[in-house]
Amino acid sequence: MRTRPLKVALLGCGVVGSEVARIMTTHADDLTARIGAPVELAGVAVRRPSKVREGIDPSLVTTDATALVKRGDIDVVVEVIGGIEPARALITTAFEHGASVVSANKALIAQDGAALHAAAVEHGRDLYYEAAVAGAIPLIRPLRESLAGDKVNRVLGIVNGTTNFILDAMDTTGAGYQEALDEATALGYAEADPTADVEGFDAAAKAAILAGIAFHTRVRLDDVYREGMTEVTAADFASAKRMGCTIKLLAICERAADGGSVTARVHPAMIPLSHPLASVREAYNAVFVEAEAAGQLMFYGPGAGGSPTASAVLGDLVAVCRNKLAESTGPGDSAYTQLPVGSMGEVVTRYHISLDVADKPGVLAQVATVFAEHGVSIDTVRQTGKDGEASLVVVTHRAPDAALTGTVDALRSLDTVRGVASIMRVEGE
Amino acid sequence: MRTRPLKVALLGCGVVGSEVARIMTTHADDLTARIGAPVELAGVAVRRPSKVREGIDPSLVTTDATALVKRGDIDVVVEVIGGIEPARALITTAFEHGASVVSANKALIAQDGAALHAAAVEHGRDLYYEAAVAGAIPLIRPLRESLAGDKVNRVLGIVNGTTNFILDAMDTTGAGYQEALDEATALGYAEADPTADVEGFDAAAKAAILAGIAFHTRVRLDDVYREGMTEVTAADFASAKRMGCTIKLLAICERAADGGSVTARVHPAMIPLSHPLASVREAYNAVFVEAEAAGQLMFYGPGAGGSPTASAVLGDLVAVCRNKLAESTGPGDSAYTQLPVGSMGEVVTRYHISLDVADKPGVLAQVATVFAEHGVSIDTVRQTGKDGEASLVVVTHRAPDAALTGTVDALRSLDTVRGVASIMRVEGE
Repeated sequence: MRTRPLKVALLGCGVVGSEVARIMTTHADDLTARIGAPVELAGVAVRRPSKVREGIDPSLVTTDATALVKRGDIDVVVEVIGGIEPARALITTAFEHGASVVSANKALIAQDGAALHAAAVEHGRDLYYEAAVAGAIPLIRPLRESLAGDKVNRVLGIVNGTTNFILDAMDTTGAGYQEALDEATALGYAEADPTADVEGFDAAAKAAILAGIAFHTRVRLDDVYREGMTEVTAADFASAKRMGCTIKLLAICERAADGGSVTARVHPAMIPLSHPLASVREAYNAVFVEAEAAGQLMFYGPGAGGSPTASAVLGDLVAVCRNKLAESTGPGDSAYTQLPVGSMGEVVTRYHISLDVADKPGVLAQVATVFAEHGVSIDTVRQTGKDGEASLVVVTHRAPDAALTGTVDALRSLDTVRGVASIMRVEGE
Repeated sequence: MRTRPLKVALLGCGVVGSEVARIMTTHADDLTARIGAPVELAGVAVRRPSKVREGIDPSLVTTDATALVKRGDIDVVVEVIGGIEPARALITTAFEHGASVVSANKALIAQDGAALHAAAVEHGRDLYYEAAVAGAIPLIRPLRESLAGDKVNRVLGIVNGTTNFILDAMDTTGAGYQEALDEATALGYAEADPTADVEGFDAAAKAAILAGIAFHTRVRLDDVYREGMTEVTAADFASAKRMGCTIKLLAICERAADGGSVTARVHPAMIPLSHPLASVREAYNAVFVEAEAAGQLMFYGPGAGGSPTASAVLGDLVAVCRNKLAESTGPGDSAYTQLPVGSMGEVVTRYHISLDVADKPGVLAQVATVFAEHGVSIDTVRQTGKDGEASLVVVTHRAPDAALTGTVDALRSLDTVRGVASIMRVEGE
């Protein structure tokens, strides 16, 4: 075993970074044995140097992250700053100055993964980011390596803990969205500005990353259809319950039936209570992967938090350090299939539609005709009414999303339809 | 990309081997792109050469496996023969003649993993065996690589599909063991001689492999406590249901609370219906991993079958081929912690005990005294009786298994205890 340590620069020392630093210290002997050489924390770049950081030698702390990654003696840069800049520039600079990179930055990888991978290859470095998707759950490595000899057809999962916590609370307590969000914020599950989570931006970044790896193609963040979960109501949960379903915010990456394209999307959906994802509680994450030979696999665990994310970062750190010692690099980007990414309109799904309609004869016939005209087949209809007002709940069979949205648009223009109370896709059957 | 193909020798062409060969042909372009060079099936060693094997060039088929692995031009040997010999000799010979090895052989790896890894290292080759545990479920790679920066404290799982199918059938239909076994045999889930599955030998081999990797230590097959599930009765399932539990054959690998030793065991156990493993149906496998930083992770999927096992074999094949091209090897054996393996007596668990007792005053006091004398604390007691006969169901708190077995032995010697109807451990709480 070599005794000269591998030098690690830590960019960011918040919830994740401080946990990475702590474990590097407390488990130094284990890391040394598993890597084959000691690892040494050589510098920690922070924004507020005056903050007291327990267990971190103050002489390692700097506000000049660029100088740190340019030092030239750094073997691995661990980037846990998040956001696009300065993270992107720092990672590129790190590659240029001899370091491989471990990142937990889903937004950056989703947006610029291709360019960053190209830079890594150009300089012969590694770029690993297991922590960017689903926290501690091993997902990137199983998709990229364990399933490297298989053909993945579908990835379907709960990849955002904040929204799952909120939806789980709404389901369990009957609370509305705002009340459940307030609880999540009070308990630290939601940030002060929850937009990235509740509007699905976070999940969309993860969907782009997962789709790219699963299908060996390039999926940009803009390619991902995205719908948040702020419009989900207690009434939607009541409807879901009547169908034996619950509601989850899902990230779904699919290969089209003909294999010629792929799609990636994030939206709330009803799923049957019998589906394993239905029982994923609180802030946990879980991802289903369907592959041709392997069949259905599921990966479950904590999707966020300092320690779980640090576990994923450190797993990558060990791998990247081993590669450094072997003077090799791990399996990098793979986008050889160059499959086109289809639009949401091409996705085949099912709709659960609640309509407020006039309570008079012939309405159902009129509504059913609209569905038929758009080639959408109806699975079930439930009609309730009193005092001249009625509601109609229609669940469709599978149809292209474009046909379903076309149907809804046409329904809105019917005189007898007073309003579309809610639309929700049905998945997981 | 290099154009000279990597040559693969396939040892065994049964359910798994034929599927490996088929996928190598049908997905050749994908494998080439993912590896960075074409892979070519260079030879197939079989016992019965006359059998028609669809899609396999008859000129590749040989009965002389030794000559095949000695050819000198083979890059990777895929061993799907199973059993100890000739698999062991062939793998060793393969290393000596320049090949890395992908194996699905749990019995061999559990028994001789240390020696085989040493041989691989000596010759600078890889030994990969994801398919040896839990079929298609990525488990070896996540434990060895994704969690390489974490400390695993517990692995608890259903790792044998045959026994899970039988237990699930008993639970669902109320059938007895023999009836459920017959059904499993008829449906192809159990072999003609089911001993390896139902007596827990198969699960014990997997437990030895998992414990070794999880704890970075050496766990031999003999170190694994093993109890089969042939004694589980419909009455046990009825008792389990009264407790809100079901019964599963579990493989459990644990680090002792003081961290100074580890244990590995296979036995039937009651687990609460609320535990995610309780809902693992039919021949599926699922494994819980508890790690210090990551928390609780679960991996779920098909644990056996030709295609799922082939998926795992091919994932390893891609990795081993990449390593060959990079002239490196992957992370191999890691047993640096050299932790002692504790006996079953040291394991801390809970017992569910059904006693047939005399229906007279003072019996419960007598029984309770025995528990107290052995330092075993009682959680609940349920007493039913009529016509001078009574039964007593005792569920204990957690205690060392030695204290629990000591208690049961002492109970047997009580005059008022007519018999011990059943003993089952309670896990997963």
